[in-house]
Amino acid sequence: MATEKKHKLKVIPLGGLGEIGKNMTVIEYGSNIIIIDCGMAFPEDEMLGIDIVIPDISYLIKNKDKVKGIVLTHGHEDHIGSIPYILKKINIPIYGTKLTLGLVENKLLEHKLEQVSLNVTEPGKSIELGCFKVTFIRSNHSIPDAVAIAVDTPIGTLVHTGDFKIDFTPINGDVIDLDKFAELGRKGVLVAMSDSTNVERAGHTDSERTIGEKFMEIFKDCDSRIIVASFASNIHRVQQIINAAVAYNRKVAISGKSMINAVKVSQELGYLNVPEGTIVNINEVRNLKNNEVVVITTGSQGEPMSALTRMANNDHKKIQIQQGDLVIISANPIPGNEKTVSRVINMLYEKGADVLYDALTQVHVSGHARREELKLMLTLLKPKFFIPVHGEYRHLMLHAKLAQELGIPEDNTVIAKNGDVIEITSKSIGKNGAVTSGNILVDGLGVGDVGNIVLRDRKLLSENGLIIVVLATERSTGKILAGPEIVSRGFIYVRENIDLIEESKSVIKTALNKCSEANAKEWNYIKMAIKDALSSFIYEKIKRNPMILPIIIEVNNNDFSKYSDLSELSNMLEDFE
Amino acid sequence: MATEKKHKLKVIPLGGLGEIGKNMTVIEYGSNIIIIDCGMAFPEDEMLGIDIVIPDISYLIKNKDKVKGIVLTHGHEDHIGSIPYILKKINIPIYGTKLTLGLVENKLLEHKLEQVSLNVTEPGKSIELGCFKVTFIRSNHSIPDAVAIAVDTPIGTLVHTGDFKIDFTPINGDVIDLDKFAELGRKGVLVAMSDSTNVERAGHTDSERTIGEKFMEIFKDCDSRIIVASFASNIHRVQQIINAAVAYNRKVAISGKSMINAVKVSQELGYLNVPEGTIVNINEVRNLKNNEVVVITTGSQGEPMSALTRMANNDHKKIQIQQGDLVIISANPIPGNEKTVSRVINMLYEKGADVLYDALTQVHVSGHARREELKLMLTLLKPKFFIPVHGEYRHLMLHAKLAQELGIPEDNTVIAKNGDVIEITSKSIGKNGAVTSGNILVDGLGVGDVGNIVLRDRKLLSENGLIIVVLATERSTGKILAGPEIVSRGFIYVRENIDLIEESKSVIKTALNKCSEANAKEWNYIKMAIKDALSSFIYEKIKRNPMILPIIIEVNNNDFSKYSDLSELSNMLEDFE
Repeated sequence: MATEKKHKLKVIPLGGLGEIGKNMTVIEYGSNIIIIDCGMAFPEDEMLGIDIVIPDISYLIKNKDKVKGIVLTHGHEDHIGSIPYILKKINIPIYGTKLTLGLVENKLLEHKLEQVSLNVTEPGKSIELGCFKVTFIRSNHSIPDAVAIAVDTPIGTLVHTGDFKIDFTPINGDVIDLDKFAELGRKGVLVAMSDSTNVERAGHTDSERTIGEKFMEIFKDCDSRIIVASFASNIHRVQQIINAAVAYNRKVAISGKSMINAVKVSQELGYLNVPEGTIVNINEVRNLKNNEVVVITTGSQGEPMSALTRMANNDHKKIQIQQGDLVIISANPIPGNEKTVSRVINMLYEKGADVLYDALTQVHVSGHARREELKLMLTLLKPKFFIPVHGEYRHLMLHAKLAQELGIPEDNTVIAKNGDVIEITSKSIGKNGAVTSGNILVDGLGVGDVGNIVLRDRKLLSENGLIIVVLATERSTGKILAGPEIVSRGFIYVRENIDLIEESKSVIKTALNKCSEANAKEWNYIKMAIKDALSSFIYEKIKRNPMILPIIIEVNNNDFSKYSDLSELSNMLEDFE
Repeated sequence: MATEKKHKLKVIPLGGLGEIGKNMTVIEYGSNIIIIDCGMAFPEDEMLGIDIVIPDISYLIKNKDKVKGIVLTHGHEDHIGSIPYILKKINIPIYGTKLTLGLVENKLLEHKLEQVSLNVTEPGKSIELGCFKVTFIRSNHSIPDAVAIAVDTPIGTLVHTGDFKIDFTPINGDVIDLDKFAELGRKGVLVAMSDSTNVERAGHTDSERTIGEKFMEIFKDCDSRIIVASFASNIHRVQQIINAAVAYNRKVAISGKSMINAVKVSQELGYLNVPEGTIVNINEVRNLKNNEVVVITTGSQGEPMSALTRMANNDHKKIQIQQGDLVIISANPIPGNEKTVSRVINMLYEKGADVLYDALTQVHVSGHARREELKLMLTLLKPKFFIPVHGEYRHLMLHAKLAQELGIPEDNTVIAKNGDVIEITSKSIGKNGAVTSGNILVDGLGVGDVGNIVLRDRKLLSENGLIIVVLATERSTGKILAGPEIVSRGFIYVRENIDLIEESKSVIKTALNKCSEANAKEWNYIKMAIKDALSSFIYEKIKRNPMILPIIIEVNNNDFSKYSDLSELSNMLEDFE
C-alpha cells in the first residue's frame, strides 16, 4: 500500500449537506471509490408537483470504473431511497445489515430490478472494497440494525457515524458500540463525519424505552380502542406498542401499506417479536370489544392519502373513528408537515376521538443525538479532522462550533456543500473545487425532465392562473381569420366576470390593430404586443399577473382549399364578385 | 328593559373558530347587533395565489340596520385586518383603544376610506351601543393597549377575553385588570368567551420582561452589530430592544415598512419611549462602529420580501450582513412558516452571522395565556356558560375540557363553528342553526372572485402543468384547417422531449380521425376525445396528469374569403382543377 500514499483522500458529499435528506457521500482514493448511503429527499415547497428528489450522480457515472460498492448505514428512505435510480445507471454491489437490505430488496422489487448484488454484513464485521477496509459498527437509531461505518484508507481511518443516538436502554438490540468508537479513537481517527440533526438541542435524547413505559401507562388506564400512528420503519416503536397490547390483553391490527410491509419484513427477518395470535386481520376489529383493540397505522405526518388521515376523514374502509377512541400520534411532524398533522388532529377530535400528541405529552423520542451525545462521540473518536454532516447549514455550523469547544481547531473542520471535493492528507484538510451535484427531480416516471423553467411556470400558474389568447391567421397574408378567443384557467371565475373578458378582448383587438397599422407581421412581435397590452390591462384592473399565452395558429390557403369543395369555393367567388 | 327580556341572546362567530385567524363575533339581542373584532386570516396552503382571507359577512349585510358598532380588542391583523373590506359594504362606527385605532386609521388610509367613525375609548370605560353596555377591560398581550370586553346584555353579562396573557410585570403598561374580572365574576357572568391559543401548553407564559433581561445579557457581551427581527406590532419588544441599545450605547436603525410604520405610530401616540438621538436613519449605520449598531427589522417569519430575508439574501439596499453580525430572531415561526424561517437562518449563517433563535435560547415569549392562566381567568369569571374561542378545533376542545376540570359542566359549554348561532337564555345555552359564513378570498383587488373551481385549477396546474391543443376548423364543414398544435407550460421541458410531443400529435390525429370516421362534429365530443386520448397516452408514458385543454377555433368561410384576394382564390381553384 506504500505506493498508494501518493494520493489524497477525497470526500465528496453528493447529498445530505445543507439539507436534511438524500444522504450520499463519495469516498475516493486513487482509483477506488466507495459510496456511503444513497438516499432520496422529499421535494421542497417550491418543487411543485415533484414526487421525490434524488442526487445528481454524474460524477459517479463518469468514474463508474472506480466504484467498488455502496455501503449503507440504515434503511431510512433518506439513506436508501435513491438506490433504484442509481442502479439503473450503474450496477454497483451493495453492502448493509440484514434489515437494511431487506428494505432495499423490497424497493428493488417495486422497480423490477434484478441482478443486483446485495451483500449482508453485520455490526462488528469488516469487508475489503478496493484499497478500503470498511467496518460496520453497531449504532442506535429510530430503526433497527443501524450502523456507523469506519473506513480504513491508505492514509488513515475515516469514521462516518450515520444517523445515531446513544441509547443506553435500547429495544430488542444492543447499545451502540461505544467501545469500538473508543478503540478507533485510541488508534487514531483521521477524519470523522457525524450526524448534525439535533445539534440545536441541549442534553441527551431520551431512550426509546421511555416511550414504551409511556405506552404501558396509557394502555393501563384505557377502556376504549387505541389507535397509534408512527413511522413504519420505527420497528422498535411498533414492538413497544405490541408489548403494551400484549400486557393489557389487546389484539393488534395493522393499517397502511408501508406499515403492513414493515411489520412483515421485520417479522420475517426476526426484528419483531410478536406472540402468536396477537396480530389480527383488520377486518376482525369489528368483532372485538373496544378494550381489546389496538390499531397500528401509518399517517403520523398527516399525509393526505395515509391510513390515519383517511380515518380522520371518515374515508377508511375498515376503521371508523368512534366516540372515545384514543389516538396516539407517536411521531413529531417533520418540518413542513406541521399543518397537515394539525388538521388530522382537529378532524380526529371532531369525530369524537381523544388525541395524544407530543404537544400534550411525550409520546415520541427522536432518533438523533443531542449535544451531549455528539460531544461524547467526538470525545471518543478524537478525530484529527471533522466534517459535520446530515444537516442544513445552521446545523453543520453549530456542530463545527461544538467540535471547537471540544478542542478540534476551526482549521481542522470543514463545512462543506454538496459537490465540494474535500481533500485530506495525513496533515491537512481543505476544499479543492467541486464536482457536478444537485437535485434531480422525479415526477411520475420522469427523472430529471422537470427543471427550473417548468417549475417556474408551475409556480406562476399556481399563483395567478393563465389566460390563453387564440388567433387564427391566414398564412400568406397574416390576416386574422378568427379570434381573439380567450380561454382561462385558474385565473377568475369567468361566468361571473364576463365584462372583464369582453374588455380584455377589445384590449387585444386594439393591440392587433396597432400591429396592423404598423404593418407588423412577425408572430413574436404580435404575441408580445398581445401579452403587454393584456397584462397591463389586467394588472390595472385587478392587480393580478396571470400567465398570458398568445397562440397564433396559421391557416394555409392550400389547406383551406383542400378541405373545401368546389361548389363552396365558387360560392366564395360569388361573394366577392 | 324588561320588555326586551323576551329575546334570546345570540352569539354568532363569523371567524376565529376552528382556525387561528379572522376573528369576528356577532353579539345579537333583538334588533341590536354589535361586532367584536374584524380580522383577516392568511391563506391556507391550498389557497394558491390568494393574498388574504376575510370573513363572509352576508349575515351582517342582511341585518345591517341592527348593527350598532364594531368593538375591537387589539390591533393585530387577525382582529382588525378585515375592517376596510367590511366598511366598503356597511359603514359602522368603530370603538377601540388609542393604539388599536391608530393602526386601523393607517389601514383606512391605504384603502382610501374616509368618513369612518373612529371612537377612541380606554380601559375601564364603558359605552352604550343599542341595548348593550360595553366595558373595555385592560389586558396583556403582545401588542400594547389590548383589552377584554364585557357586554352587559338584557339577560346578563357576556365577557370576551380577546387575546390575552397574564403578565405580572408588563412593559410600559399595567397588569391585566384581574380585579375587574373578579368583580364581574362576583356579580355574575352569564357567558365567557376565552382565548384558546395556548391551551396545549402547561404552566404560565413568561413575562415579556424576561426577554428584556435576555436582551440586556446578550447586548452586554456583544462587540458586533446586532440585528433583531420581531413582529412590527410587538411594541413592547421594540421598547425593550431600544432600552438595551440605550443601556449599551448603541444607536437604533429601523428596517422594513411595517416596522417603520409601527414605530412611527406608537411614538406619535406615546406607546414608545425613545431617548432623543437614539433612533438614526438606516443610512447612518455605515458611519457607526459595529458595537454602536442595533437594527430592528421585520422578517421574523422569513417572509420572502421582508427586510431580514433581503439581508440574508444579500439583497437589502442598506444593510449587508458581515462576518460576526449577531442576528436575533425574536419571534416564533407561525405554523406553516417553519421552513422559510429555517432558510433565512441558514442563509444568515452562510453570510457569516451568528444567529440566536428560540431553538437555541429563549428570545421570544408568547402573547397568549397557557393553561394556568386560562384557569385563573375562568376561576375569576366563574361564568355560567362557556364558549372557547380563538383556536382550531383541538384548542377549543381542550379548553372546554379544561373548563370542565374547573367545574363548568359539559352541557354549559359550546364548541362552535363559524356561522353557528349560539342561543343563550339565563338558563340555557345551545346551538340553533347557522348563518352564512366562510372564507372570502382576496386576490389582488379581487374580493371573492376566486372560488373553489379556480383554486382547483391552480392546484392542478401547479402539480402537473398543462398541455394546450389548438385546432382551427372550417365553420361550415367542421374540417380541420390547421393543427393540432401543442403548447405546454409547467409540464415538461419541451426541447428535450420533442419525441413525446410528436407522439402526442399523432395520438391526437388518430383520435381526430376516429371522430371523423364516426362523423362526430360536436365540439365537446371532439374535445373530450382529444383529452381522453392524450391523457391516457401521457399517463402511460410518464405517469403524469397534466391539465389538457383542447381549443378549437372556427374559421368562417366568409372571413377567409374576405381576407383573400381574387388572384389567390383563382390560384386555389387551379390547384383543385
